[in-house]
Amino acid sequence: MAEIAVIGAGLIGRAWTVVFARAGYIVRLWDPDEDVRKAAPQTLLDACILSGDDASALDRVHVCDTMENALRGVEWVQENGPERLELKRALHAEIDRVTAPEAVIGSSSSALVASSFAEGLPGRGRILVAHPVNPPHVIPVVELCPSPDTTTEAMDRAEALMRAAGQVPVRMSQEVDGFILNRLQAVLLAEALSLIARGIVTPQGLDDTVAHGLGRRWTLMGPLATINLNAPGGVTDYLDRYGPTMARLTADSAGGGAFAPEVARILADALPSPDQVPALSRDRDRRLAALSRHLTETQFSQQEP
Amino acid sequence: MAEIAVIGAGLIGRAWTVVFARAGYIVRLWDPDEDVRKAAPQTLLDACILSGDDASALDRVHVCDTMENALRGVEWVQENGPERLELKRALHAEIDRVTAPEAVIGSSSSALVASSFAEGLPGRGRILVAHPVNPPHVIPVVELCPSPDTTTEAMDRAEALMRAAGQVPVRMSQEVDGFILNRLQAVLLAEALSLIARGIVTPQGLDDTVAHGLGRRWTLMGPLATINLNAPGGVTDYLDRYGPTMARLTADSAGGGAFAPEVARILADALPSPDQVPALSRDRDRRLAALSRHLTETQFSQQEP
Repeated sequence: MAEIAVIGAGLIGRAWTVVFARAGYIVRLWDPDEDVRKAAPQTLLDACILSGDDASALDRVHVCDTMENALRGVEWVQENGPERLELKRALHAEIDRVTAPEAVIGSSSSALVASSFAEGLPGRGRILVAHPVNPPHVIPVVELCPSPDTTTEAMDRAEALMRAAGQVPVRMSQEVDGFILNRLQAVLLAEALSLIARGIVTPQGLDDTVAHGLGRRWTLMGPLATINLNAPGGVTDYLDRYGPTMARLTADSAGGGAFAPEVARILADALPSPDQVPALSRDRDRRLAALSRHLTETQFSQQEP
Repeated sequence: MAEIAVIGAGLIGRAWTVVFARAGYIVRLWDPDEDVRKAAPQTLLDACILSGDDASALDRVHVCDTMENALRGVEWVQENGPERLELKRALHAEIDRVTAPEAVIGSSSSALVASSFAEGLPGRGRILVAHPVNPPHVIPVVELCPSPDTTTEAMDRAEALMRAAGQVPVRMSQEVDGFILNRLQAVLLAEALSLIARGIVTPQGLDDTVAHGLGRRWTLMGPLATINLNAPGGVTDYLDRYGPTMARLTADSAGGGAFAPEVARILADALPSPDQVPALSRDRDRRLAALSRHLTETQFSQQEP
């Protein structure tokens, strides 16, 4: 079976390790911190237990003592370094230098685009962003975003590999700040924070609107398949009927000013306190894994063409 | 048990009928179309079968031959008339005239705010919008939006009744065009359509990003509880770290111009054709019912305070 290097064994790197190992790949894992490397067998086991994954997959994981060892002979590198530009550039220069030329290199970067750290490197054509939603072993989407230098072949191979690993790759045609997911999240959050700051709805009411309403359709089929079913004549009919209303609702929607300190205070008062974050995060991941299994078991009988 | 009138026996009226009947209420259902009234026992049964609801609840449903009969003695009226202002005004004038003064009147209106059809009516203080997501027997959220005339008592009673009926009421403090849900949907759709029109992602890729990513967290806990877990120090920490990035991503986000004919054509080519809409809608509702049961069975162990 093909081999994959996972660079960085924090939360995201460990989740990627589970993704690739359970799909049958040999995973060569490395982290610059020796303590993190030593703890990896246990922390990987914890990740499997939380998600309900079969921990025997971890037999395919090799924790390596140097990055060079981890990168030897792999066909894919999943890089999970810190989101600081200088560190990221240095890391990719080193990965590019020691990895076999046929390997493809994906970065889990959420804030930095690939051109910012791959520009000028000899292997820039094989470097792209493969941005997961944390943690990827319980949320399958991965955004594949090229730099202007990334080759079509590298994108093809990234897409095929992610699909083979059981993830849902979303292929972008060009580099865009925020990729897709965070751009969608940003506009919805801005409007949400504005409605709360204006006192129109409480934080709990806002979350309820999505969790017990809008979000359910979106989770079953996405926002476009959703509107395709919301008018008898499909999406064209929907946009004819409701497009002008939707356009009107965006006309006075919130901008970046919504991310203001005053609303942060309202939210901090309404939401669970920071000391509850670790336990709630574990609970979230357990529920995400259960939701993933539920959605797989109850597939839409007719898929989009 | 208390009695409820459901006015209009289309898709939404029938779904409301199932909601109230399964919660133990006596439902008095009326529709102006005699054929629709005659078909109601069968169409209500179909709705129950689709959602997996126990059809014996329908023993509590009385199909009435006049609106006046339906409204007699009820404590709540759920109005589901067409979304045309003159019709809505006339309907509410009549409902207000014949309903006992202590009843509260909720409209399923999604496009019209309550002031537009209740202003000037003697009972305007007890009229509000109770906007469901279609169909409400498988999606629990209901937006409660007052007009400037709606009394606090009417809002309190609406909230208590919806909670007793097993729905998730979201109470708004004032009248806002689009309420909450469609404002959130509008900004996300605008950005989605813009990304597609620019060729950055395909419609399938856009839907995958939400269905297999962002939407899952939002469905489990909503967008605010989501960001509260996305930084070690909770929501304040999140907005400190990522607020400026989020603000930047909204700075060049799409406006109402995104709802353009050109993108409608791209979507129509990519999505299932209109002849598939009825079958896909039934499938959606079946899956929404299954998702609702799944979410109920796997409650978050710690709730927002």
